[in-house]
Amino acid sequence: MKFGGTSMAGTERIRRVANIVRRQQAAGHQVAVVVSAMAGETDRLVNFCREAHALYDPAEYDVVVSSGEQVTSGLLALTLQGLGCKARSWLGWQMPMKTSDAHAKARIETVDAPAMVAAMEAGEIAVIPGFQGVTEDGRISTLGRGGSDTSAVAVAAAIDADRCDIYTDVDGVYTTDPRIVAKARKLKAVTYEEMLELASVGAKVLQTRSVGLAMKEGVRVQVLSSFIDDDATPADELPGTMIVSEEEMEQLLEDGEMERQHVTGIAHDKNEAKVILTRVPDKPGAVANIFEPLAAASINVDMIIQNVGRDKGETDVTFTVPQADLARAQALLEDKRDVIGFNRIITDSRIAKISVVGVGMKSHAGVASSMFRALSERGINIQAISTSEIKISVMIDEDETELAVRVLHTAYGLDAEG
Amino acid sequence: MKFGGTSMAGTERIRRVANIVRRQQAAGHQVAVVVSAMAGETDRLVNFCREAHALYDPAEYDVVVSSGEQVTSGLLALTLQGLGCKARSWLGWQMPMKTSDAHAKARIETVDAPAMVAAMEAGEIAVIPGFQGVTEDGRISTLGRGGSDTSAVAVAAAIDADRCDIYTDVDGVYTTDPRIVAKARKLKAVTYEEMLELASVGAKVLQTRSVGLAMKEGVRVQVLSSFIDDDATPADELPGTMIVSEEEMEQLLEDGEMERQHVTGIAHDKNEAKVILTRVPDKPGAVANIFEPLAAASINVDMIIQNVGRDKGETDVTFTVPQADLARAQALLEDKRDVIGFNRIITDSRIAKISVVGVGMKSHAGVASSMFRALSERGINIQAISTSEIKISVMIDEDETELAVRVLHTAYGLDAEG
Repeated sequence: MKFGGTSMAGTERIRRVANIVRRQQAAGHQVAVVVSAMAGETDRLVNFCREAHALYDPAEYDVVVSSGEQVTSGLLALTLQGLGCKARSWLGWQMPMKTSDAHAKARIETVDAPAMVAAMEAGEIAVIPGFQGVTEDGRISTLGRGGSDTSAVAVAAAIDADRCDIYTDVDGVYTTDPRIVAKARKLKAVTYEEMLELASVGAKVLQTRSVGLAMKEGVRVQVLSSFIDDDATPADELPGTMIVSEEEMEQLLEDGEMERQHVTGIAHDKNEAKVILTRVPDKPGAVANIFEPLAAASINVDMIIQNVGRDKGETDVTFTVPQADLARAQALLEDKRDVIGFNRIITDSRIAKISVVGVGMKSHAGVASSMFRALSERGINIQAISTSEIKISVMIDEDETELAVRVLHTAYGLDAEG
Repeated sequence: MKFGGTSMAGTERIRRVANIVRRQQAAGHQVAVVVSAMAGETDRLVNFCREAHALYDPAEYDVVVSSGEQVTSGLLALTLQGLGCKARSWLGWQMPMKTSDAHAKARIETVDAPAMVAAMEAGEIAVIPGFQGVTEDGRISTLGRGGSDTSAVAVAAAIDADRCDIYTDVDGVYTTDPRIVAKARKLKAVTYEEMLELASVGAKVLQTRSVGLAMKEGVRVQVLSSFIDDDATPADELPGTMIVSEEEMEQLLEDGEMERQHVTGIAHDKNEAKVILTRVPDKPGAVANIFEPLAAASINVDMIIQNVGRDKGETDVTFTVPQADLARAQALLEDKRDVIGFNRIITDSRIAKISVVGVGMKSHAGVASSMFRALSERGINIQAISTSEIKISVMIDEDETELAVRVLHTAYGLDAEG
């Protein structure tokens, strides 16, 4: 089980969490709980570090910011004890959760926790601070912001858990953003691949890295709300959204637990910006000259389109980068103007990316054409298209985001009834 | 060097501390720094624990409350790095500072820190969170409130430090409380024994346990202010009060660094309460019946006087206990009324203990009689007397505390000139 910062904000909320944990134990489960710091605490600690030294040493930064989860893990263990449960905290270095030495953005390497597993088998609840680990040379490391989801999946894999329940502010994964489409439906299950596409294009429920790890390790993840009315739900019911392998999804479909759909959900993302380089020489290597400097600066380029240029031997190249990296990307490209040989840079951050996602589209050819038809019927202009096996994305004017999401949600039959 | 919570309260103050530390390094010292949590932080964390579980598990309490010093140690290391120094934090479990497993009141057992010493020899400043250690089975322990002074002395002993500088809210040890006697003088040096007597009777500058450890390990401690005007004082001058062995003190006296005095200082303590048990049977074992239950309940009994009773075969027994333990002591004694066989319990918390302290009185018989004469000349009634080799204490009415301190300060020639 994993609880986020909102659930851990203060002793009253921690008592709620302890009750949810105790019910799972009472239902017969051996339980390990991964916790975040109290909401706002990590920001407070990060600010201290910035004030102390603008170019802070990430190893010392990790010493400071990891303390937030240390506090909540101790407090949850105490609260569980107060409810009559056996419980103890297992800090990153005690477990140990070994990570790379890339401080502040470490990767989990091994979780080998025989003492913790033995304690769990003896009926003790293990409480684990998320986000933190220990390096080979015995220093505290952290996994980067939002790393507690990844900690939870790593622990679940290490102890071969039946399930990894991630309690969040939302009660599951929806067919699309319920703030845009009132008829959005909560999904009973999605595959890892679908979740990765939905997460990376805006449905921010789980940290992307944690989903990737769950897929790799075959951990069954459930996303559910920490604000459910706990007493109204049987402890072994699954009230949230399960994130599962394609095989398990196939089984759920065969058993009639899920309805077959070509499209599982519609995601949108307003955080990209469009860049157009005009009159780039249409010759081998020209495109590489554009994207190599961006890749070297860790700027993620998403959609790429090469338009036919007005003059022979020249093309316009259009692509998207995260809005946050736009200024940096522009400066890098200006630097390379001579090498690339373009005429002008045109940028536009008032764009949106709309994606339809679903493993069902693998075996169904008509999904893309339905999308283009539905959008054109409402006069929405498609500026670019990109596709993967289970996703089709289009770039449109940002002002038309909500309209496009609603139109597609209806077009693919995702609207809830009534 | 050790800095308390007021000095660590916020990044601006930590920068001040870092500057003081850097100056000592620049003066040629290898430096280890022990830090407290930010002022108020430990209280905040202790309250969280109480809210989580009234009868909290001290092992989990230690996980929570030790985080305050973890944060400040990381922040000071970062701030020192920002000033161009090499620095790193060494947490209790990293050093390691091994303690007993008496969580929340652990005792330091060993500090064997070869890696830290090697780093210091290579020019790196070691920053150590005070108050925390690690038990034999690898769990975080804490030393009890105020334990950072003890951490500092333990580290100084382990690394064979020339000096252990403890920066506090006051700039040294005074002949008496300067709030009572304007002419109180700052002492250049006191012996461990004097400091123990002065600390235990109210001059709360250093945690008593840290002074005992310094005496045992022969660590030279300097008490000085963290608010001194740093740039005005040469880094190798000693602006505070040195706490030293009797041998070193003898040397200072011979060298003319210190003036010989019979009395070093006057302390007062208003936190004791008087208990009188009337008409206790005057027979063997009677007094043991009184004090054994108090000792078993860890109630510290200080002055004890047996008055001659009004009737033959009976005496009145008077003693003092800390005010905080008075109600508990009374209840315990009432429980044992039949065994002890007393008539009434009379209590009085409006008393004060005044002590004159000085190694010089060992070789000088007249100190006690001067004390009694000076007090009686001002009409101050002495209710009880107790003495040790280097201390004479009297119990008086609390209202006369300030008068008594002033009278004695003048009588022993301690007033500053001018």
